Amino acid sequence: MTQNIAILGASGYTGAELIRLIANHPSMNIKALGGNSKAGQPLASVFPHLRHLDLPDLVTMEEIDFSGIDLCFCALPHKTSQEVISKLPKTLKIVDLSADFRLRDPQAYADWYGNPHAAVETQKEAVYGLTEFYREDIRAARLVAGTGCNAATGQFALRPLIAQGLIDLDDIILDLKCAVSGAGRALKENLLHAELSEGYHAYALGGTHRHLGEFDQEFSKIAGRPVHVQFTPHLVPANRGILATCYVKGDAQAIHNALQKAYADEPFIEVLPFGEAPSTRHIRGSNFCHVGVSGDRLEGRAIVVAALDNLTKGSSGQALQNANLMLGLPETDGLMMAPLFP
Amino acid sequence: MTQNIAILGASGYTGAELIRLIANHPSMNIKALGGNSKAGQPLASVFPHLRHLDLPDLVTMEEIDFSGIDLCFCALPHKTSQEVISKLPKTLKIVDLSADFRLRDPQAYADWYGNPHAAVETQKEAVYGLTEFYREDIRAARLVAGTGCNAATGQFALRPLIAQGLIDLDDIILDLKCAVSGAGRALKENLLHAELSEGYHAYALGGTHRHLGEFDQEFSKIAGRPVHVQFTPHLVPANRGILATCYVKGDAQAIHNALQKAYADEPFIEVLPFGEAPSTRHIRGSNFCHVGVSGDRLEGRAIVVAALDNLTKGSSGQALQNANLMLGLPETDGLMMAPLFP
Amino acid sequence: MTQNIAILGASGYTGAELIRLIANHPSMNIKALGGNSKAGQPLASVFPHLRHLDLPDLVTMEEIDFSGIDLCFCALPHKTSQEVISKLPKTLKIVDLSADFRLRDPQAYADWYGNPHAAVETQKEAVYGLTEFYREDIRAARLVAGTGCNAATGQFALRPLIAQGLIDLDDIILDLKCAVSGAGRALKENLLHAELSEGYHAYALGGTHRHLGEFDQEFSKIAGRPVHVQFTPHLVPANRGILATCYVKGDAQAIHNALQKAYADEPFIEVLPFGEAPSTRHIRGSNFCHVGVSGDRLEGRAIVVAALDNLTKGSSGQALQNANLMLGLPETDGLMMAPLFP
Amino acid sequence: MTQNIAILGASGYTGAELIRLIANHPSMNIKALGGNSKAGQPLASVFPHLRHLDLPDLVTMEEIDFSGIDLCFCALPHKTSQEVISKLPKTLKIVDLSADFRLRDPQAYADWYGNPHAAVETQKEAVYGLTEFYREDIRAARLVAGTGCNAATGQFALRPLIAQGLIDLDDIILDLKCAVSGAGRALKENLLHAELSEGYHAYALGGTHRHLGEFDQEFSKIAGRPVHVQFTPHLVPANRGILATCYVKGDAQAIHNALQKAYADEPFIEVLPFGEAPSTRHIRGSNFCHVGVSGDRLEGRAIVVAALDNLTKGSSGQALQNANLMLGLPETDGLMMAPLFP
Repeated sequence: MTQNIAILGASGYTGAELIRLIANHPSMNIKALGGNSKAGQPLASVFPHLRHLDLPDLVTMEEIDFSGIDLCFCALPHKTSQEVISKLPKTLKIVDLSADFRLRDPQAYADWYGNPHAAVETQKEAVYGLTEFYREDIRAARLVAGTGCNAATGQFALRPLIAQGLIDLDDIILDLKCAVSGAGRALKENLLHAELSEGYHAYALGGTHRHLGEFDQEFSKIAGRPVHVQFTPHLVPANRGILATCYVKGDAQAIHNALQKAYADEPFIEVLPFGEAPSTRHIRGSNFCHVGVSGDRLEGRAIVVAALDNLTKGSSGQALQNANLMLGLPETDGLMMAPLFP
Repeated sequence: MTQNIAILGASGYTGAELIRLIANHPSMNIKALGGNSKAGQPLASVFPHLRHLDLPDLVTMEEIDFSGIDLCFCALPHKTSQEVISKLPKTLKIVDLSADFRLRDPQAYADWYGNPHAAVETQKEAVYGLTEFYREDIRAARLVAGTGCNAATGQFALRPLIAQGLIDLDDIILDLKCAVSGAGRALKENLLHAELSEGYHAYALGGTHRHLGEFDQEFSKIAGRPVHVQFTPHLVPANRGILATCYVKGDAQAIHNALQKAYADEPFIEVLPFGEAPSTRHIRGSNFCHVGVSGDRLEGRAIVVAALDNLTKGSSGQALQNANLMLGLPETDGLMMAPLFP
Repeated sequence: MTQNIAILGASGYTGAELIRLIANHPSMNIKALGGNSKAGQPLASVFPHLRHLDLPDLVTMEEIDFSGIDLCFCALPHKTSQEVISKLPKTLKIVDLSADFRLRDPQAYADWYGNPHAAVETQKEAVYGLTEFYREDIRAARLVAGTGCNAATGQFALRPLIAQGLIDLDDIILDLKCAVSGAGRALKENLLHAELSEGYHAYALGGTHRHLGEFDQEFSKIAGRPVHVQFTPHLVPANRGILATCYVKGDAQAIHNALQKAYADEPFIEVLPFGEAPSTRHIRGSNFCHVGVSGDRLEGRAIVVAALDNLTKGSSGQALQNANLMLGLPETDGLMMAPLFP
Repeated sequence: MTQNIAILGASGYTGAELIRLIANHPSMNIKALGGNSKAGQPLASVFPHLRHLDLPDLVTMEEIDFSGIDLCFCALPHKTSQEVISKLPKTLKIVDLSADFRLRDPQAYADWYGNPHAAVETQKEAVYGLTEFYREDIRAARLVAGTGCNAATGQFALRPLIAQGLIDLDDIILDLKCAVSGAGRALKENLLHAELSEGYHAYALGGTHRHLGEFDQEFSKIAGRPVHVQFTPHLVPANRGILATCYVKGDAQAIHNALQKAYADEPFIEVLPFGEAPSTRHIRGSNFCHVGVSGDRLEGRAIVVAALDNLTKGSSGQALQNANLMLGLPETDGLMMAPLFP
């Protein structure tokens, strides 16, 4: 049976990625594409790479009849999302790709985002969308909050280790290397090709990146005590990819074993042989996450590296994986494409 | 019914691209992967991006039992291919991706490639693999010769115009901008990232590129008289893509009409609205070819621009499209993935 | 004797490039940096790569005391430039990098730029800044109009050939491949790294690019009859560089001889051995222009390729070269740095 | 007085970078260029970007008359360098850019490089070439050993902190992001543009990178006790640059103060305002090193980030700076060019 899908925020990168994936989904049909700033335009004029698809034109959210929609993806900017979602039919299944429903504690939300949450009731209902760890909750959920792309990468590397007490919880450092599409289609000087393409730098230094709110929430929950990691993102001249290099204290071999076991049955998480390091080029354009573990010459230290595509597994692929669960479809439908290399 | 597939030359880029595509094909099963220089290795160690697939290890050609194979792709280097293919079972269906069987005239082959052909009898049997123009021949063929990637791009832009006499046959200039994966995985100084990534240049100047042999053969055939175009390729710092800018003398509007008509029913060739220009970023990783036509301020001149992905529509995607025809499968099977952007 | 310099529009790329070059000039001293939108900021916050220099803060144009200035570079946007320059002291030496004073005919200006010129009197005074061909005029000029970067590249390839009647004047095609910094620091979607870095395309098709106004003016002047070339620019994923591939009808060897002779004494124009092709990577960051000539398999055709750095020889380097002449300094002062490779 | 210079290994990237810099040096003259594998060729055919320079052809080392040479740069591969240098005249001043003379302890050399040192006597004579910390020794030295590019970057970030006891010596983590030219002109699959340009990865995981030998030697020496850091390099798709993100335990403000003081009079080391992060794009092509310090939300932790150009300050620029000292010339001669941005 075909599932009817709406996408709000279809003119951004995560919106386009959803369409790319759904185009090959065996049982989803895109019924409506919302994009207020470009309403009235055919999608092909906004994203010429989707020109071959037979898709509805972009419309304003108000023009969409949600009565025939089975599931709605919200790929809207932060803050806009909570306002829009609180006005959608209460029975509509929703996968939100923004940051608005990731934090369960309204105070934590206000602290990290600088404003009180505008839809606290809806927030309570939301399930955190890290599929591999919230699968059953997601299956039953009406509203799923997609995780931050950095937050997903770090959690794939570390959750099983924290849960099993394999690493020192007070000394976890995540050094992330992020590709530029994670910043979205925003017009900023430092995202111009001429500025970005031949250099790289750290940003949000000192523990100020908002995805730390997710790390704190999730790692503290599974540890049963407060866990506060160090996390520094870097912007590198590539379009897709996140590479998380995690410096931890623990036994490297035990860590590798734990990760292998934890992900043995996961279709999208690949744990590499001990000592091998993942590369973003090997997951590009796919829903796979590669995880590698190495020891260090300093005893009792290990390095866990995780790589995923921020637009796919880190965002729209994860969203589709969750939507499959919410609609009772096979979890991997539309998601088994191989990475694009070279 | 599942079709059993062998790929020779699986450790090169076109081999990897075939595997990427076939991985999502509904009725093909890869039974053997030949790669003499890396025989004995699992494919994941040669192409870690294909790690999630359940594939046979690389073997030497001699180790492959072709009796259970329905179709074999040969993604071997030029010259090697003719030697290998002449030794394969005469009943085996073959799609060759090398240059070895593209030219029908053994003398033309010797002239362009600098050596006599080693399998003249087999050469006679080969059908030229430009699907959109040799569809019925390909359906009936045992051996199909994949076209050059540059040759395909230029022909999509120009064949209908030459066939219909819409342009001056003595003044056709093709200026091509080619991405680096077209050069294969060869270890050459000028293909190193440090050398290539921040510059671009023309090469094979003066009409020396071997794909001219194909242009001459095909354009002369459809024109019914000798046609010799000017063709200059340029290497640009991108991994996938060919952009052919074709300068012709003729009526731009008539040219646009002719192309629209010629490709109206083609699943993979998209003719853009008059005056719009294709971009390689909008066909990346897909089997689509975008074609655009513009007039010039100088009357009687037109510019036809065609864009495709050299590894997909220009090579492995074309090969799979042809294999589908040869095996009686739907032509678009495994090939409808959307381009990867950004 | 130190020459005091002001730069208006110092917060753009050509402004930054001027500062980079002047920083190593033996006898220039930057006294004022104008940048209205960022006035009040230290230059290091706008261009951190110039942090090591001891420079004045950015100010508004009104704040600059021009009485102590020997020469002013105007690196302002088109149209703004003519308004600003018409208000500057009439005795001030000026090198303008905008398009505002390149066309001598006010009607041609109005046709190409869509508005009447706001400073027709000043326009009359301006000397066209293609140093190698207007050297004596520039030496005596008060106001020099920097050429378009594309226009410079094409002229270096073709002027001697047109002047000497070596090529068919009615069939000249320029296919240009331009790097992205030529578009300036403007915030446009198609200049974002995520959009641009993995694709390339033609733009301004059909003879609509404004630099055609310069080609028409200059080529017609030296030919003594109207000359209208075909010119199509392409945007490629690199930051610096223009590569002009020029398709002409004429004797390739005679063309090569003429270019060698024409540029024999030029410090910045290098004519490569016959048959060699220049590459933008070999002039990056320098004031050099490389020119190559090849024949074609079609008799009577030749391909002339010219490469330069759009920000240096195509703009700020040319401007400094002209300023040196205007101030009676050695022409090559501050300009002999070698290209940056890799 | 002009100093006569020889460069051995002139056909590699560090050799080319030396020539680029010396081309603008006020008192150096290149008398001989050694490059055994390309002996007999003009340099312009190996490095066309240096075509405008009047340079001697490449010769074999045996062909060079060292009697008229004031100083010789050795930009040869590791291991080759020690063999060559041990045969050069004992009175010749030498700056070696290889790894061969960096480690003072022959056993440490053997451990890290896997073979006994072939020139132990010469090794004893060598001065470690980190100019800012060995200035007086270098001035008096006959043989200076250029540092590893990664080792230089990490030391600029950390030496003053270790020397002054400002950070926990047992918990220092260096996460480096390195550009590809650091790998040299070697023909390796993973350095091809098609492989590298759209991905990034960690390598030499687990404390196996040879530059650790330098960190151990230098940090232990200034600490007066063994110091063993964690160091993980990553290869990113850029040509020039090293960014070292150093995670340390100490007071961030005190760290910043110490670095500011330490580098207050250094011409090439710029300490950014507290909280600002350096970027490789802002030192590209220059001899500058930018250092930034940030605190973390976790008390007692700091992040020190250093950025430099691996080919300039990390290698050939450092070498020239040392040569200036050895020859009694101003230290900054030939090295004050501004970075190339964009």
